[in-house]
Amino acid sequence: MFEFVIDNEVVLRLLDTMHANQLSELTDSCRPYLREWLPWVDGSKGLEDTKAFIEMTKTQFASNNGFQAGIWYQGSIAGVIGFHEMNWSHKSTSIGYWLGAEFQGKGVMTKACKAFVDYAFGELKLNRVEIRCGEGNSRSRAIPVRLGFTKEGIIRDAEWLYDHYVDHVVYGVLCREWLSE
Amino acid sequence: MFEFVIDNEVVLRLLDTMHANQLSELTDSCRPYLREWLPWVDGSKGLEDTKAFIEMTKTQFASNNGFQAGIWYQGSIAGVIGFHEMNWSHKSTSIGYWLGAEFQGKGVMTKACKAFVDYAFGELKLNRVEIRCGEGNSRSRAIPVRLGFTKEGIIRDAEWLYDHYVDHVVYGVLCREWLSE
Amino acid sequence: MFEFVIDNEVVLRLLDTMHANQLSELTDSCRPYLREWLPWVDGSKGLEDTKAFIEMTKTQFASNNGFQAGIWYQGSIAGVIGFHEMNWSHKSTSIGYWLGAEFQGKGVMTKACKAFVDYAFGELKLNRVEIRCGEGNSRSRAIPVRLGFTKEGIIRDAEWLYDHYVDHVVYGVLCREWLSE
Amino acid sequence: MFEFVIDNEVVLRLLDTMHANQLSELTDSCRPYLREWLPWVDGSKGLEDTKAFIEMTKTQFASNNGFQAGIWYQGSIAGVIGFHEMNWSHKSTSIGYWLGAEFQGKGVMTKACKAFVDYAFGELKLNRVEIRCGEGNSRSRAIPVRLGFTKEGIIRDAEWLYDHYVDHVVYGVLCREWLSE
Amino acid sequence: MFEFVIDNEVVLRLLDTMHANQLSELTDSCRPYLREWLPWVDGSKGLEDTKAFIEMTKTQFASNNGFQAGIWYQGSIAGVIGFHEMNWSHKSTSIGYWLGAEFQGKGVMTKACKAFVDYAFGELKLNRVEIRCGEGNSRSRAIPVRLGFTKEGIIRDAEWLYDHYVDHVVYGVLCREWLSE
Amino acid sequence: MFEFVIDNEVVLRLLDTMHANQLSELTDSCRPYLREWLPWVDGSKGLEDTKAFIEMTKTQFASNNGFQAGIWYQGSIAGVIGFHEMNWSHKSTSIGYWLGAEFQGKGVMTKACKAFVDYAFGELKLNRVEIRCGEGNSRSRAIPVRLGFTKEGIIRDAEWLYDHYVDHVVYGVLCREWLSE
Repeated sequence: MFEFVIDNEVVLRLLDTMHANQLSELTDSCRPYLREWLPWVDGSKGLEDTKAFIEMTKTQFASNNGFQAGIWYQGSIAGVIGFHEMNWSHKSTSIGYWLGAEFQGKGVMTKACKAFVDYAFGELKLNRVEIRCGEGNSRSRAIPVRLGFTKEGIIRDAEWLYDHYVDHVVYGVLCREWLSE
Repeated sequence: MFEFVIDNEVVLRLLDTMHANQLSELTDSCRPYLREWLPWVDGSKGLEDTKAFIEMTKTQFASNNGFQAGIWYQGSIAGVIGFHEMNWSHKSTSIGYWLGAEFQGKGVMTKACKAFVDYAFGELKLNRVEIRCGEGNSRSRAIPVRLGFTKEGIIRDAEWLYDHYVDHVVYGVLCREWLSE
Repeated sequence: MFEFVIDNEVVLRLLDTMHANQLSELTDSCRPYLREWLPWVDGSKGLEDTKAFIEMTKTQFASNNGFQAGIWYQGSIAGVIGFHEMNWSHKSTSIGYWLGAEFQGKGVMTKACKAFVDYAFGELKLNRVEIRCGEGNSRSRAIPVRLGFTKEGIIRDAEWLYDHYVDHVVYGVLCREWLSE
Repeated sequence: MFEFVIDNEVVLRLLDTMHANQLSELTDSCRPYLREWLPWVDGSKGLEDTKAFIEMTKTQFASNNGFQAGIWYQGSIAGVIGFHEMNWSHKSTSIGYWLGAEFQGKGVMTKACKAFVDYAFGELKLNRVEIRCGEGNSRSRAIPVRLGFTKEGIIRDAEWLYDHYVDHVVYGVLCREWLSE
Repeated sequence: MFEFVIDNEVVLRLLDTMHANQLSELTDSCRPYLREWLPWVDGSKGLEDTKAFIEMTKTQFASNNGFQAGIWYQGSIAGVIGFHEMNWSHKSTSIGYWLGAEFQGKGVMTKACKAFVDYAFGELKLNRVEIRCGEGNSRSRAIPVRLGFTKEGIIRDAEWLYDHYVDHVVYGVLCREWLSE
Repeated sequence: MFEFVIDNEVVLRLLDTMHANQLSELTDSCRPYLREWLPWVDGSKGLEDTKAFIEMTKTQFASNNGFQAGIWYQGSIAGVIGFHEMNWSHKSTSIGYWLGAEFQGKGVMTKACKAFVDYAFGELKLNRVEIRCGEGNSRSRAIPVRLGFTKEGIIRDAEWLYDHYVDHVVYGVLCREWLSE
């Protein structure tokens, strides 16, 4: 029912139970593409796993600990973006996201991500937003770079991806930087 | 972040923690008016109670058992509308609502309520929506009447309102009626 | 161990784990009969489901939210009667019941139901007791009629019964009516 | 609502929320008497503690782990008897009980206790029932002796009673002994 | 990581998840021997059950309700010893233990048990420690006898062991006795 | 009872309830010193908070999610070291620690930290250990430097410390690096 309209093409909606079918189909439509950088793909085997994921994101929202949104592009679900968790003590959060193969290259995620950062600083009054990307994942890294984040370091062997470790590049942006832009 | 835009003046938003201040102030601004028909007013003494209420509504949402939305009118929070609970087995729900004193008489609630019924039948695929109103609460009763609900009965002494019992008029509408309109 | 003796033939007992076998057998003995009006029959497939049901009713009792009693007729378990839940704020409750096919027509349920209403008003100090029956379920509707309840309305499509909706007739009785009789 | 009628004078009822007032008053009426042998008396300061105790006993019942009954003598609540817990693996349980000062010496507890042992062996199909009494508590020890229990040992310093340790005499009876009597 | 070194050969370690494999293998290595006196052997079918057991013991520790230690002899896990539960109100506890067949007769358990009693009185400031043994289990009974416990009674049919009941001999030692030795 | 003996002077013990008094006194003895870099000092007001902290660490241990150890120096509690949490999927963890003012400069923490890293790689079979230090906290930063960790980046405004943000330097070491040393 509730949505965040970015423009004529891109809409964000808080993930809800009724989105499970579409989201599960999107995942199925490009598994080899997604699993190149996403560690959860093999474990999410079908509709039931997607439902469980959505249920978990709703509990996250209920706990005031962030939330996950579906991204719709021209009426089709195209991906997911969300806050991993909220650190209210230190006023920081981090953002994660993914897009189906066919929705790449249209600027969708940059818009969605900008909306999330705006919300984090403007409404949630946070001080810091972080994005971590696999070092070789150039598409993902392009987003924080484009949005003016600062590269802060490289966490070695941060993630086990099916059969090898991946280093994470850490990007951060502070409220005072974002608002001064 | 997420909202349902009804028109230029009326917007619905899933209640979230950050709305606690505004909602608490709205309640405080017209307590005598609200307590005429709402049994929770005296028990909701201030910001902490409003926060606890909102937390409860988020848990309701997380349980896939309905949700509560704040109603904004010209940028100010004006009231609340929500599904009391979801009966998925019998595909039915009921709607409750209230509006601050100064927002009465502008058609706000009829629009919000219509949006909720549309959503219940269109998106949630329910079969029946119910609204119960205090028998003497003419403003509240006008909403389902205006939206074409059928009066189905009167539940006597349905509610204890501080110092007396109130009879409830039950209004119902079925999916096939709503869509044929 | 504990029981409510109505007369030489009819005894009520708080449902307990040791009743699971008898209750499961009673259900099995007349499934086609029961499923005409009871939505839970197909889902209660055997002893394990009956045990789970009884466990649930004991939790209901522990939560001070009503209870379920088995009805014994001449030493055999004949059916179940119980309070659906307790609304202590509004001092109201509703009663549900069912009887095995062979125990019909002996006045068993009218006696059991009268005992429950007596208890609700006399001991629990409630103000209102409600009974809802399927509109076409004449045997069930005869009970509140016989006990002097008032017909208050008809809730359309209130219940999904395997393959069709059933309208519910709402009957209510108030403490002042019951005691004045 | 439910009760176990022992004779014209003595009735047992599963403890329920509505008994809290009577039970609290009984405790208050003879605190010095009760605290001579009962370790919980000082901690049970009034109605709220009695309510919490009753709630706990209802949860015990819901967990199929035994239950507590109030004992009524000539219409007044006189004491409490209950199973401490159920050991279903080893088919054993133990019984605890207390009586208000003015209800002593009438054979009330012997009757109540006999009913509990009958129930443990006859209905619950247990194999062993145990009763532990403070060594110097002659009134309490008379019950298992009268009912034919066997003295099995003395547990030294078994209980801390406000300012000193008390030894416990262990009495036990087995199903085959009870039924052969 | 943490251990209690008794001497060059015997070491105790708080049971942790990483010990599941060794402990499961020890159980498998002498099932017929263990099941002569231990009621849990048949129910512990393999690694998963051992993991569940260890998880349970860690929860026990987290609840400040006692703990279980593995016993290592010359670097191999040899058995388990632990506090069944802590009765902080009455300042008492009881100890249970078992040893694999090949580790018998080396004085291992007497040393481990002495360390536990020392800890109960010296660090936990308890007043009473109890050990219960199957009446015919002479190896087990030798431990408390050797450590100076007093035989306090015999609990008849205390335990159901697969196909028969076992009487338990109760041994107890008090702090003042232990320290005066 | 259980401990990890590093040398004649330094011993680690899994934090347990009985350590609450000593740990609370240690905190009280050097609050101004500790609060320079530790965000929890002002919130830990006395014994009750320390007990709650220890209880939380025991739950962490029970959840197989890391643990916290007290550090004893010449028989006195000197500080705390622990794993923040365990990321078993990615085989990584991070270590946090603090020492009372008077225990600085004796090499205590370097030894304790080395023991934790040894345990993480040797026993827990992890792949990566991380330590984060406040940028200006030279004493803390000296530990990972001394142990051969690699500086991987600086997380800006990572922590809110009472009245200002602190940047965190991230140090990491991988299993293959540690073992090759």
